[in-house]
Amino acid sequence: MPRTKAKTKTGRDEPSLRRLLRLPVGEPVDLSAYDAAGTPGGPAGKQAGLAAIATLAPRLAELQERLYAASTAGDRRRLLLVLQGMDTSGKGGTVKHVIGHFNPSGCRVRAFKAPTEEEAAHPFLWRVARALPEPGEIGIFDRSHYEDVLIARVRELVPRTEIENRYGEIAGFEKSLADGGVTVVKVFLHLSYEEQRARLLRRLDDPEKHWKFNAGDIEERALWPAYQEAYEIALRRCATDRTPWYLVPADRKWYRNWAISRLLLEHLEDLDPRYPKGDFDVAECRARLLAS
Amino acid sequence: MPRTKAKTKTGRDEPSLRRLLRLPVGEPVDLSAYDAAGTPGGPAGKQAGLAAIATLAPRLAELQERLYAASTAGDRRRLLLVLQGMDTSGKGGTVKHVIGHFNPSGCRVRAFKAPTEEEAAHPFLWRVARALPEPGEIGIFDRSHYEDVLIARVRELVPRTEIENRYGEIAGFEKSLADGGVTVVKVFLHLSYEEQRARLLRRLDDPEKHWKFNAGDIEERALWPAYQEAYEIALRRCATDRTPWYLVPADRKWYRNWAISRLLLEHLEDLDPRYPKGDFDVAECRARLLAS
Repeated sequence: MPRTKAKTKTGRDEPSLRRLLRLPVGEPVDLSAYDAAGTPGGPAGKQAGLAAIATLAPRLAELQERLYAASTAGDRRRLLLVLQGMDTSGKGGTVKHVIGHFNPSGCRVRAFKAPTEEEAAHPFLWRVARALPEPGEIGIFDRSHYEDVLIARVRELVPRTEIENRYGEIAGFEKSLADGGVTVVKVFLHLSYEEQRARLLRRLDDPEKHWKFNAGDIEERALWPAYQEAYEIALRRCATDRTPWYLVPADRKWYRNWAISRLLLEHLEDLDPRYPKGDFDVAECRARLLAS
Repeated sequence: MPRTKAKTKTGRDEPSLRRLLRLPVGEPVDLSAYDAAGTPGGPAGKQAGLAAIATLAPRLAELQERLYAASTAGDRRRLLLVLQGMDTSGKGGTVKHVIGHFNPSGCRVRAFKAPTEEEAAHPFLWRVARALPEPGEIGIFDRSHYEDVLIARVRELVPRTEIENRYGEIAGFEKSLADGGVTVVKVFLHLSYEEQRARLLRRLDDPEKHWKFNAGDIEERALWPAYQEAYEIALRRCATDRTPWYLVPADRKWYRNWAISRLLLEHLEDLDPRYPKGDFDVAECRARLLAS
């Protein structure tokens, strides 16, 4: 029986959001079974959600500082948040929200777009490997190597046999990250077809948002079922106990922000990074400073 | 006569902080002539300063979005904020503050530490050139290529003739950036010797801040006069009309944050980036979306 309560570092019993949102490993994924407007494990509504986020914020900030501080004493652990989702599912908004909790100097954000000529000339994991967080950092990927089994599959950008190989390569790559001290937190922002329409229409309604829109977005939307299927395959084939996928309902922005903050908190609390002890004599240093 | 008032895009007359803080180009620099606790051109006090920052924030956010949006239509302009200053002068705090104004996805932050083995094997500008902002982005350097004429000079890490060459190389490099559409905003955070002592003592007083401290900080502090001289030389030899240096008094954090926000605003307003027009038929797209 999975536990749904976990003793946190703060000593309080809190529901584990990880257990609630983690997609079962090794089982088929049916995205239509998940409510994109749901709020599993979440606060009762938007106001409560914003208040809960405000409570999480200082804990997140302290844990990030500890993670970074620990790295200065040789701790090689780090965290990588991978964000995937359909257009308008809120990847950019999530990046902005998450960064708001942290000291940006300790974060490494990378948005992956269509590969450049140089990137395309390399194996597909090349550009991703170059963007990984260093020890002590929090990395955030807005899209990722998963595009290489999503749009690449739907648009048939490479032969299907190559796509099939990539699932295994991704799993191997992510295992190597985990082995190297990278906590990989993979989040699928689950948006509904209707909410995407509403969000695209809002972009059209505001001339200052037109630059975010292009007619290709509508063509991609027409391929919605193929994308959902491509996601279902990737979410199943590239999930392990150490590198599972989390499904975050994304129709409600406040829930999305709360859930991702909470997921990050749970992972960072598990890492429990510690401030390193100084390797100097405090009294002596104080005396020298006062004399200077 | 330098003008000290400029008509801004918003149509109001506001004092130009750039003119106030820009170090005279081609003249010797005497840092002791500048009050590190001063608030030139600034609000009357801390509370007024925080209120003024709150007023600047939405203007900064919009200008950054416009800069980024313009790049999606081919505008290659970008901005690079270079932060230099003695230990504890607030480079990290400035990064955190500045990023708070912007969408982090459009920012590229890089902290330069002692060169890695790979970096040291390359010419000194190599690692800097790799960290430059892309079109539409705002880059922030926490330390920079200037370390290669600061600590490298004071600690005699390379022969003096090599240091002498570097000033010209830096000036040439920055000219190439300006030619390529990079607005380079170089800020020297001017801290007093006394305030540094107080800040280092505060780190010693808090065990959770010990990781930020090392005994080497006291040794660097003992070289204060040599560093001030190295700064005076660099600030003179690497300033041009297109890539001047700004001296920001840094003893008061609220003034430092206000001044840098304001400097960024003035530069971004001068760039005056525009949202690109969409290359699609809005009515047709709306109809297609509604039918989807």
